[in-house]
Amino acid sequence: VSLITLTTDFGTRDSYVAQVKGELLRRGPAGLRLLDLSHELPAQDVQAAGFFLRYAVARFPAGTVHLAVIDPGVGSARRALALRAGDQLLVGPDNGIFAWLQASPERAVELDPSRLGLGAVTATFHGRDLFAPAAAALAAGLELGELGAAVDLATLAGEPWPQPAVEGARVRGRVVHVDRFGNLISNVPRSALSSFIAPRVQVAGHALGAPARTYADAADGAALALHGSEDLLEVAVRNGSAAERLGLGVGAPVEVGEA
Amino acid sequence: VSLITLTTDFGTRDSYVAQVKGELLRRGPAGLRLLDLSHELPAQDVQAAGFFLRYAVARFPAGTVHLAVIDPGVGSARRALALRAGDQLLVGPDNGIFAWLQASPERAVELDPSRLGLGAVTATFHGRDLFAPAAAALAAGLELGELGAAVDLATLAGEPWPQPAVEGARVRGRVVHVDRFGNLISNVPRSALSSFIAPRVQVAGHALGAPARTYADAADGAALALHGSEDLLEVAVRNGSAAERLGLGVGAPVEVGEA
Amino acid sequence: VSLITLTTDFGTRDSYVAQVKGELLRRGPAGLRLLDLSHELPAQDVQAAGFFLRYAVARFPAGTVHLAVIDPGVGSARRALALRAGDQLLVGPDNGIFAWLQASPERAVELDPSRLGLGAVTATFHGRDLFAPAAAALAAGLELGELGAAVDLATLAGEPWPQPAVEGARVRGRVVHVDRFGNLISNVPRSALSSFIAPRVQVAGHALGAPARTYADAADGAALALHGSEDLLEVAVRNGSAAERLGLGVGAPVEVGEA
Repeated sequence: VSLITLTTDFGTRDSYVAQVKGELLRRGPAGLRLLDLSHELPAQDVQAAGFFLRYAVARFPAGTVHLAVIDPGVGSARRALALRAGDQLLVGPDNGIFAWLQASPERAVELDPSRLGLGAVTATFHGRDLFAPAAAALAAGLELGELGAAVDLATLAGEPWPQPAVEGARVRGRVVHVDRFGNLISNVPRSALSSFIAPRVQVAGHALGAPARTYADAADGAALALHGSEDLLEVAVRNGSAAERLGLGVGAPVEVGEA
Repeated sequence: VSLITLTTDFGTRDSYVAQVKGELLRRGPAGLRLLDLSHELPAQDVQAAGFFLRYAVARFPAGTVHLAVIDPGVGSARRALALRAGDQLLVGPDNGIFAWLQASPERAVELDPSRLGLGAVTATFHGRDLFAPAAAALAAGLELGELGAAVDLATLAGEPWPQPAVEGARVRGRVVHVDRFGNLISNVPRSALSSFIAPRVQVAGHALGAPARTYADAADGAALALHGSEDLLEVAVRNGSAAERLGLGVGAPVEVGEA
Repeated sequence: VSLITLTTDFGTRDSYVAQVKGELLRRGPAGLRLLDLSHELPAQDVQAAGFFLRYAVARFPAGTVHLAVIDPGVGSARRALALRAGDQLLVGPDNGIFAWLQASPERAVELDPSRLGLGAVTATFHGRDLFAPAAAALAAGLELGELGAAVDLATLAGEPWPQPAVEGARVRGRVVHVDRFGNLISNVPRSALSSFIAPRVQVAGHALGAPARTYADAADGAALALHGSEDLLEVAVRNGSAAERLGLGVGAPVEVGEA
């Protein structure tokens, strides 16, 4: 059974998502299933989309098609892509939203409207008029190569995932995402702390002590560091927002040193 | 395979949508698929719902059932409808939400609870207690005529889609929708400008020049006019909100004249 | 066909819901269907979740699996549960979110990661790492007893649904939920008023007269009492928010007396 997931910044107050869904179902194979991942990504925030896809995509069954449209440059010269990364297929703009996938892209093509049997594509709504037909074609079993010409993987847009810097007994990273609960999530993986005897965490100068095991290890309203659901070091406030409590956001420096 | 889409202003903070979904699945045919279009329509905003359905509905596979509940008059004398428009089926209140469909209704019936095997219908939640059973019945293959008595199409509620006025070399329309990105979408179609040599667009007195091809044709923060995804003339601000930047909303006058 | 519904307070701005969906599909049976009930429950609000599930769950087809994760105590000692209530199956934390189900739990087990073939479960994301595998296993046909040891039903967390007090000719209840429209929903059922000749409703001292039949029975902006969609007495303002208009919320006293 074929499956297409949808990830956008369209919201659902307007009919844009509905139009995409209609297009997918009308063009896709019988029995096609659609699955919303999110339509509430921050508007036109490519980095937030990259972080989202990094952790969402890899868990799906092999062959799942992921349609991802966060596209501030729609109508500009940015390319329209379909690509394979690990055993997942992805369709969306070449603007960096695929730069942080855990499985690096192995093959990518630039979508060619004529190969998809499309006439003029509107300049404003590629999600409906170009990406949806491409996703429907992949869900129907077409190969990447039938959708367009191969793209040199080295030319794909975006910076790779930022690894934290290790300097002697210090690890220096930064906040890469703030989640809905106000947790400050950094790029420092648990593995970076494996050689520490008594790690001490700081975020923008706030001392947080050793990583805790769980949110419940802090008092209400107190900040703590812990390894979050992706084994990334994060800063949280129990029953509160660390972002608000500390006044911090994406880019804030996170450091770990020995006690 | 039968498919019911859902469009409401219920939000999902409460269990209203969940109750409707349970009712649909319990009453519908085996293998029935449900698809959310939106639950975030502006509360009790019939015009916004009409605009949404105008552009969402027509793209779906033939025979799709659309359950649409934006119903400020629930419990009043307004009729409960099921209707066919083009190759789509729709169920919802007779309050104007179906007035702007691109395919005009060809047949409509007033839902009769007794024909649906329903006892007393609550006065407050027709979405769950009347419209959902009707949608499930249509998805199971019942004909419109089995759900109630025919309605004279001329008596359906709502005003037709407002066509812009053409006065000599001027086209006068108005903003009919503001989308999530703050784009001001008018009722002026691309075709209304086909005889212009050098069209110039104004919105509420703000001169915007000729329609651009794409959002990317303006500098960040500058307002521009362009033909949007439905070929309607719209006013946008690149990486910003035209509604906020210009302080305008639904009803603002949009004019096109020759340079 | 197996069906899993999802109810969380995760929102969809982050990838948490997407990760859970990937895990469900990867582990679940072929043809598994997922259905969103809500991801917008108030963050970490166990009572709101209990009210939501009370009215959402019972309407689904027999054998539906409901995954419900509102879990402020994740990582603490609270148990992880799977349970059967009526003909529905539920999976989630033992923190009271299942205390208000209309069909009382008949059987419950404490999830045992080793029986689910799981290694170490993260301390921070049981929704993905423990509850999702359990829900997928139930959807695949496993029995409750295969997921863990039985739990004494008397030890399940949470207070039972609060019945209103009847004192002579007065019924005293309270607001238990405020919905998206600002309606103040009480715990006073229609049946509690059956012996009244001329009931008069008060909320926090505001006299509202007899229960109306429908929202449309009040003038715009006026408060009224009526029996809502669950036959609970609620306070509404036509085309407005009773919560804002009266400055009231959960816990406000609702009284009914004879005229």
